[in-house]
Amino acid sequence: MATTWRARVHALLHETETRSPARSAVTAVLVVVIVISLSAVILETLDWLAAAIGPLFAVVEAVAVTVLSAEYLLRLWAAPEGDATGVDHPWRARRRYATSFAGIVDLVAVVPALVHVVAPVPADWFRVLRLLRVLKIARYTPALALFAAVIRNEGRPLLATLLVVAVLLVLESAVMFTLERDAQPTVFASIPHSMWWAIVTIATVGYGDIYPVTPAGKIFGGVVMVLGIAVFAVPAGILATGFASEIRKRDFVVTWQTVARVPLFAGLDASRIAEIARLLKRQIVPAHYAVVRRGEPADAMFFIMSGEVQVDVTPTPVRLGKGQYFGEIALLRDTMRTATVTTVNECQLLSLDVGDFRRLLDANPTLKAMVTRVADERLPAAMPGDASRSAPSTPRA
Amino acid sequence: MATTWRARVHALLHETETRSPARSAVTAVLVVVIVISLSAVILETLDWLAAAIGPLFAVVEAVAVTVLSAEYLLRLWAAPEGDATGVDHPWRARRRYATSFAGIVDLVAVVPALVHVVAPVPADWFRVLRLLRVLKIARYTPALALFAAVIRNEGRPLLATLLVVAVLLVLESAVMFTLERDAQPTVFASIPHSMWWAIVTIATVGYGDIYPVTPAGKIFGGVVMVLGIAVFAVPAGILATGFASEIRKRDFVVTWQTVARVPLFAGLDASRIAEIARLLKRQIVPAHYAVVRRGEPADAMFFIMSGEVQVDVTPTPVRLGKGQYFGEIALLRDTMRTATVTTVNECQLLSLDVGDFRRLLDANPTLKAMVTRVADERLPAAMPGDASRSAPSTPRA
Amino acid sequence: MATTWRARVHALLHETETRSPARSAVTAVLVVVIVISLSAVILETLDWLAAAIGPLFAVVEAVAVTVLSAEYLLRLWAAPEGDATGVDHPWRARRRYATSFAGIVDLVAVVPALVHVVAPVPADWFRVLRLLRVLKIARYTPALALFAAVIRNEGRPLLATLLVVAVLLVLESAVMFTLERDAQPTVFASIPHSMWWAIVTIATVGYGDIYPVTPAGKIFGGVVMVLGIAVFAVPAGILATGFASEIRKRDFVVTWQTVARVPLFAGLDASRIAEIARLLKRQIVPAHYAVVRRGEPADAMFFIMSGEVQVDVTPTPVRLGKGQYFGEIALLRDTMRTATVTTVNECQLLSLDVGDFRRLLDANPTLKAMVTRVADERLPAAMPGDASRSAPSTPRA
Amino acid sequence: MATTWRARVHALLHETETRSPARSAVTAVLVVVIVISLSAVILETLDWLAAAIGPLFAVVEAVAVTVLSAEYLLRLWAAPEGDATGVDHPWRARRRYATSFAGIVDLVAVVPALVHVVAPVPADWFRVLRLLRVLKIARYTPALALFAAVIRNEGRPLLATLLVVAVLLVLESAVMFTLERDAQPTVFASIPHSMWWAIVTIATVGYGDIYPVTPAGKIFGGVVMVLGIAVFAVPAGILATGFASEIRKRDFVVTWQTVARVPLFAGLDASRIAEIARLLKRQIVPAHYAVVRRGEPADAMFFIMSGEVQVDVTPTPVRLGKGQYFGEIALLRDTMRTATVTTVNECQLLSLDVGDFRRLLDANPTLKAMVTRVADERLPAAMPGDASRSAPSTPRA
Repeated sequence: MATTWRARVHALLHETETRSPARSAVTAVLVVVIVISLSAVILETLDWLAAAIGPLFAVVEAVAVTVLSAEYLLRLWAAPEGDATGVDHPWRARRRYATSFAGIVDLVAVVPALVHVVAPVPADWFRVLRLLRVLKIARYTPALALFAAVIRNEGRPLLATLLVVAVLLVLESAVMFTLERDAQPTVFASIPHSMWWAIVTIATVGYGDIYPVTPAGKIFGGVVMVLGIAVFAVPAGILATGFASEIRKRDFVVTWQTVARVPLFAGLDASRIAEIARLLKRQIVPAHYAVVRRGEPADAMFFIMSGEVQVDVTPTPVRLGKGQYFGEIALLRDTMRTATVTTVNECQLLSLDVGDFRRLLDANPTLKAMVTRVADERLPAAMPGDASRSAPSTPRA
Repeated sequence: MATTWRARVHALLHETETRSPARSAVTAVLVVVIVISLSAVILETLDWLAAAIGPLFAVVEAVAVTVLSAEYLLRLWAAPEGDATGVDHPWRARRRYATSFAGIVDLVAVVPALVHVVAPVPADWFRVLRLLRVLKIARYTPALALFAAVIRNEGRPLLATLLVVAVLLVLESAVMFTLERDAQPTVFASIPHSMWWAIVTIATVGYGDIYPVTPAGKIFGGVVMVLGIAVFAVPAGILATGFASEIRKRDFVVTWQTVARVPLFAGLDASRIAEIARLLKRQIVPAHYAVVRRGEPADAMFFIMSGEVQVDVTPTPVRLGKGQYFGEIALLRDTMRTATVTTVNECQLLSLDVGDFRRLLDANPTLKAMVTRVADERLPAAMPGDASRSAPSTPRA
Repeated sequence: MATTWRARVHALLHETETRSPARSAVTAVLVVVIVISLSAVILETLDWLAAAIGPLFAVVEAVAVTVLSAEYLLRLWAAPEGDATGVDHPWRARRRYATSFAGIVDLVAVVPALVHVVAPVPADWFRVLRLLRVLKIARYTPALALFAAVIRNEGRPLLATLLVVAVLLVLESAVMFTLERDAQPTVFASIPHSMWWAIVTIATVGYGDIYPVTPAGKIFGGVVMVLGIAVFAVPAGILATGFASEIRKRDFVVTWQTVARVPLFAGLDASRIAEIARLLKRQIVPAHYAVVRRGEPADAMFFIMSGEVQVDVTPTPVRLGKGQYFGEIALLRDTMRTATVTTVNECQLLSLDVGDFRRLLDANPTLKAMVTRVADERLPAAMPGDASRSAPSTPRA
Repeated sequence: MATTWRARVHALLHETETRSPARSAVTAVLVVVIVISLSAVILETLDWLAAAIGPLFAVVEAVAVTVLSAEYLLRLWAAPEGDATGVDHPWRARRRYATSFAGIVDLVAVVPALVHVVAPVPADWFRVLRLLRVLKIARYTPALALFAAVIRNEGRPLLATLLVVAVLLVLESAVMFTLERDAQPTVFASIPHSMWWAIVTIATVGYGDIYPVTPAGKIFGGVVMVLGIAVFAVPAGILATGFASEIRKRDFVVTWQTVARVPLFAGLDASRIAEIARLLKRQIVPAHYAVVRRGEPADAMFFIMSGEVQVDVTPTPVRLGKGQYFGEIALLRDTMRTATVTTVNECQLLSLDVGDFRRLLDANPTLKAMVTRVADERLPAAMPGDASRSAPSTPRA
């Protein structure tokens, strides 16, 4: 049945919420094809290598273009599956894919090579066009999309600082040109030449092909460095901050799902779990690391996202895995840690600080009641020596 | 009637609170004139270009000076309109304009060219003076004014770090001069020469025209890099932080007006709206982007500042535009998102986190009552499948 | 009376809590003497200048040493005045001054020059010693002391990152030496030579005197840049953060005193004023700037620390000065700004955000009562058109 | 008794919670041995030095390898002592040590040298292997472990930015190669050559061995600097932030122990002390520094972690040491500071801000009662002139 095939292709290629091994394999193959074809394009500009294994590069390119063309056509064919309501005409869904940013990137990845067959483009710019397929990587990793989001969100302040940089560049170049043109008539030959000096200087690159030699030029150059560089650093700061907050936002859904799996919070509403998820800090801990030590003060409780930990209680150590948690009883009962917990392998943990823990309980009477009840149930079991871990409740993963 | 003409000119040229298409056109023309005349000044220093199209540059300059002179005279003439109370003598208002920073910048943009007609100034510095009209750009974009505000606010810490940099420069230069003068008597010829090395190094520009060659000089140079560069980076950090907080402050009025237009907050006091506006985060989302997805946990509600979104509810998708909002019902009713909301075109959204949402309601009983009432009204309408969107209430834009 | 003279000298020279014009003058003279003598030391290394005006430099140095020696002896003589309890023996107080950091800096500023008279030191290092008097500047400006405090407080993390930088340097140098020694046997002649490359590279200075030329060296160099530079940037970030928090701490006392002078807070306890002072943000506003505009939403109230503002109310505009405040009534009564307030000259303002304002009132019932009472008293007076300013209550400055 | 010896060796070498002088001595010796042997490896690449004192380097290496081999064998032998429960087979504990990261580093520190005796490795890479013992430093200082934790925790955002940097590098190199290859066929000979330009430029190193010379190349180069450098700065920002938060986390245990020793908090639960510990800010103050001044407003109270302070009260000044605190009475009684407190020697203080102090008391009724009771007890003693210090209660250290 055609529809079924189309749905399968769609599930393999398009971004959906479910992840299947088959889809991961297809993604891996496509990424490998892109990376190899990019490497071929880059390396064939080395004359000695092109002389030695030139034909191999042609084969790689042919295979890559075939694979990526097939991908584009299949995506186009399967695009209507992405329309959940199913009311649109199939070609409308296809046109929407073809005109989306992702669709254009997919097309650009193959068109230059196909056009080349019909009407050869000058080799140099043609090569740049072929390298544009590096943008396809953005489909498979969130990094580029993340950056695009940061630049969109911080667009206004970024533009504002760039304008200030531009104004500084114009004035600095004109002054330096005036100061240095007599001493170095060929190097500082015009204001545009001088602008090259200004940008290379306030970007702190300083190739050394152009720099002031007169005392007045050097003094002015020093002032430019002190003022210009500080201004030039502002966009970098804006980007870094925006990036950090965007990352935190994207982590939210994964964190929420882990919290929802914690028995302690099992009965809570979706949005109350969201509130808790916002308080958690992700932490990656290597194997054999003591997360909490017996007798130390308790500053947080921990949820296990991946990996296993071992609680060193006396008759037999207990192991806890994904979805379980530990360290909450010391917070509830105001005692010191009563058992050491070490990681068995590399673990992803989410930690909830003692302050947030208390504030959470104070603000949510329902949660407080639930926590007290769970703690009361666990108290006898946790009596001597294992008060800092949860009872080995059934993992839900 | 002369007064009317003066008022019209004032409305076209001076910064006022209202924005008319005519005013935008005038601003655009002036910016274009300034940018073209700046480009002409810069490009005419290229000898080959000056030889080829030199007369064109003269024409551009003549036109630019005429336009900018006319602008200055009109602004001067219309200045009294800026005095709302109307009690001042007109010439007093004009003197106030002429002595303000903006007035001086306007004057400086034309005076050098006019003086040149009477008594020719040496060409080089005259060119720098003509380029000062780049400062007029500050009149039309907030970026430069923003920067000036940051530098004023952070002036004290910036000066403090510059003093530390100066002290380091003096000591480093003296030591390096002592270490290197024998090995490189012409390069490190004096402490001022050595200061050029020091500033080029701790600014990390490193042209390569001057650097230590003796072992002792290199070891000391390494220490200078480690210490000096860290100190030099401090002003950049201060600027970046100050800039970020200034931007946030300036966004406030725009955000406030959007919030005031939200039906949910329609009955609130001005300052309570201000309180909410402080909690919102601006976000720019590209077209065809799924802002919330059916079945995912809810972490925020969204207000639309510009653009349109589509709520995928079953019989027919609903579109929401400027001034409307979505995603609040999942927060109110503690459910998961019950419909996917995608953007139709690029949207500016304001998001309110679940934590802030709750705290807001807890702190303001009036608001809580209002929200509960609105939610109750919407509940039947939002029953199956569209709980995460607002009823398509009448947009107010 | 000898004691009186000593007390006067002490008041002029030593850091005390009171500031007199005489003390400011003495400080100014000393700073000028130090700066001129530093300039002389620096400039006399320029051979042509030393040949031209060499004797002048000798005179400057003689005068400077005389003045600074006199200062040191007077400080030593007056040191016992610094002992408030007066129980110590005078020489004990003098010894304490002489062995303090400040005392040693004062001594170092003159000793090299004095020693030179007796037994000439080699000129080069002697010059560095004379330049150490730049540290005396730290006595008169808080900038250097501020930096010292930041470095003390952040000492541990700074050292930790420097150790990481050192470990990276060792490993990178060894690898690069191995990769490049055959291609460039004189440039990368040993691991110490290679360390010079590594430090110049990860500090991003890049003089260009030493860089890899082999393909393997360039690839490894690229990796070093990506990893090493990120690590090298960490201490700069730590310094910038520490500096910002230290500045905020030092602003506290000044801010507190301004808040204590505000009539609204007149009856509050010292520590409650401290609590308010922590919430205020300092802001410097240029002349003729509209701080609040009629009809805009109110997001903060303002206290005037210096300068004057004009409230544009209808019969006659009102001027407010140091110690007065405005903008609070719009917050109290939940209205829009009802008058525009512009600065007459450059003003230092302290702003209190609407959120903090509300939280403050909610947390302090006493304050809430007082604010309500003050507002009630002012309401008739502020009725039409000037609701956003305080009644021109008597300034306390 | 063999077990006792093994336990003693374990206590000397392995990381444990107790610190003995003997253990510190052993650690110091090992660090010195490593640093000296590293210096020898580095310096023997200087030909003239190797010619002069070559045999000395061989001796140093032999001693170092002997000491480090002995350390490795002893650690391996004593490893079973680290198993608190004692249920494992001794060789299992040894295998666990041998396969841990620390065990591998210990082995790598000696194996190359030992292998060299049997089968000589090529000298160059062998030297790099010997330098790997620099990693052993990570055992003795927390700095490297701290960095490793930061990189693990921030791994995902760091990788994301590196991917963006890589994509930018590919595209920039291809464009610049196309623009510059004709003008500089040997310098920009291929895209890989061009990538060296790109990385050297966006890392702002700028050696000056490769840079654009055509106008188009320079314009594109300017754009690359503005965009690329901002992106390149993002990982540095992420690292700096992650490092700061990791440092704060590690300070927690030490801070907690100090707080627990404060009499005021003696009766509190472990987790309530943890809550307080999170609010404290560490501060290092030099000798003779006035921490609080009589008559100034009170913004914080202070706990002494190390060093001594003197409270200038009238009959006789009082000294306070480790574990004691001061400045709380001015907060409790809402008065100004009533005595100046100066440091006797360098002190580590923990400060608790007035706002946090109040919030703490408001949130914890038990603590409030206790504080009020302690204050009441102290009031008579603190009556005139020493209200800002604690009674010299018995130190607990």
